[in-house]
Amino acid sequence: MLASATEADFAAWMGSIRARIEDALARSLPGPQHAPARLHQAMRYAALDGGKRVRPLLTFAAGELVGADPARLDIAACAVELIHSYSLVHDDMPCIDNDVLRRGKRTVHVEYDEATALLVGDALQTLAFQLLAEHPLPGNAGAQLEMLRTLAIAAGSRGMAGGQAIDLEATGKTLSQTELEFMHVRKTGALISAAVKLGALCAGPCPVALEQYANRVGLAFQVVDDVLDAEVSSATLGKTAGKDSKQGKPTYVSAMGVAGARRFAEELRGGAHAALATLGERAQRLRQLADFVVLRKF
Amino acid sequence: MLASATEADFAAWMGSIRARIEDALARSLPGPQHAPARLHQAMRYAALDGGKRVRPLLTFAAGELVGADPARLDIAACAVELIHSYSLVHDDMPCIDNDVLRRGKRTVHVEYDEATALLVGDALQTLAFQLLAEHPLPGNAGAQLEMLRTLAIAAGSRGMAGGQAIDLEATGKTLSQTELEFMHVRKTGALISAAVKLGALCAGPCPVALEQYANRVGLAFQVVDDVLDAEVSSATLGKTAGKDSKQGKPTYVSAMGVAGARRFAEELRGGAHAALATLGERAQRLRQLADFVVLRKF
Repeated sequence: MLASATEADFAAWMGSIRARIEDALARSLPGPQHAPARLHQAMRYAALDGGKRVRPLLTFAAGELVGADPARLDIAACAVELIHSYSLVHDDMPCIDNDVLRRGKRTVHVEYDEATALLVGDALQTLAFQLLAEHPLPGNAGAQLEMLRTLAIAAGSRGMAGGQAIDLEATGKTLSQTELEFMHVRKTGALISAAVKLGALCAGPCPVALEQYANRVGLAFQVVDDVLDAEVSSATLGKTAGKDSKQGKPTYVSAMGVAGARRFAEELRGGAHAALATLGERAQRLRQLADFVVLRKF
Repeated sequence: MLASATEADFAAWMGSIRARIEDALARSLPGPQHAPARLHQAMRYAALDGGKRVRPLLTFAAGELVGADPARLDIAACAVELIHSYSLVHDDMPCIDNDVLRRGKRTVHVEYDEATALLVGDALQTLAFQLLAEHPLPGNAGAQLEMLRTLAIAAGSRGMAGGQAIDLEATGKTLSQTELEFMHVRKTGALISAAVKLGALCAGPCPVALEQYANRVGLAFQVVDDVLDAEVSSATLGKTAGKDSKQGKPTYVSAMGVAGARRFAEELRGGAHAALATLGERAQRLRQLADFVVLRKF
């Protein structure tokens, strides 16, 4: 009874943050009527109405923990989600994953065309930095600059884009667990981790405990993604399932089997909880999100 | 005699700034040995050793006018040039211009592959914002944030990326001079203009006269580009010549003929000089650069 009340409360919180983020993104993206209209429509198609919004949820959970202003968290969460959206649009393009389905919709290059998809990704990335630069953090320009720096490092050639490059090179090869981790810490972990840090930075320096939490949840997210890719249908995922093994990509499932990957994800979930041990009740949303990331079915 | 001494002095100044920027870019880009090595090598291939470096020259000329710290101008000029380099890599890709020659070298997707070119452009863009965010402007975080904001607006969907989208849509159509200007102010003008503003911002707010100068030089640059594309060989340009008319792209040459486009460029050069009228000897480099942009042969 108590457990289900807690679950209902968490589900309601997730719903409210998702609605809030949808609204903030809709306001932050240029209107579909503004020239160049087709580009702006495609940017909105790519970023709105889709996804679990795991990164914004983490930004809000971290920000609520440190007492950040929700209006400021909107900006931080939008910036992280725009970087994520841009990466999906480019990764889906024919020259990388050549995928046709994303978030239950046709991918941008299928719905529009390749040139537009390229420009959509480019412009979504730019908008992420624009938002962080143009919305002042009153009295704390230093933390605002730190948010920009953190997001850039997470997205760049030693973060997300670099992880994607390693992934491309690794196709058809067998990687050790250490090599897999090197790749995924960059490809997925860096931005998940930045989502947590940017939430905390809205109210000051990011506590070390949150950084540890973020790194573990970031890696767990990818491990679970690999399991789901192997086990769940495309219809449930809202994206093409089973493509890792079809493309010969090394994954946690290919490295340690489904059972081993699930065990590893459980360990990381335990580690994420352990990082929050001293933070008490205030960290409840972050604990729930660690559980959500590892126990999700899609 | 005096004229040629002035010209030699300007040529020497350009050479010294170009060497300085090459060095600053080489230090700012991740080393070719750092993982992912292939991505970092391709980023260096795209950004180093090439181009006239018109934007960095403008950044330095504007910065010298207002007495900015040269070390800080290095950062601003690198950021602008990285955005420019990213845009060239993506524009050359098969889904946009499908070009094989750039700055006298094979384009990135030809020298490496398409997926790498996509990630190179993405990561060069990110690095531009990272540089501006991580190098403090001592005692002036506000101007530092304004640099980030200015560069993002110039690069984004209402600036450079938006201009490229309009260009795609316009292929095969006839545009009026007003429509051409709407496109080119975004596609080329916005970033040229940002190059000037970022130089000035290194020492404080950007003077209005410099903004006017920047807008006129930015548009002049594109008008002259259109003339050169129609008149000069690929070997001289270091990129494929004549492709605008081959691709049915509306240009200043198709709108007003070569002679009309040259006249328009001359008018803009006059306007750029007029904007600097009250600034005296200090604006000499900016005047020389306006002349260089309009009178260049490649």
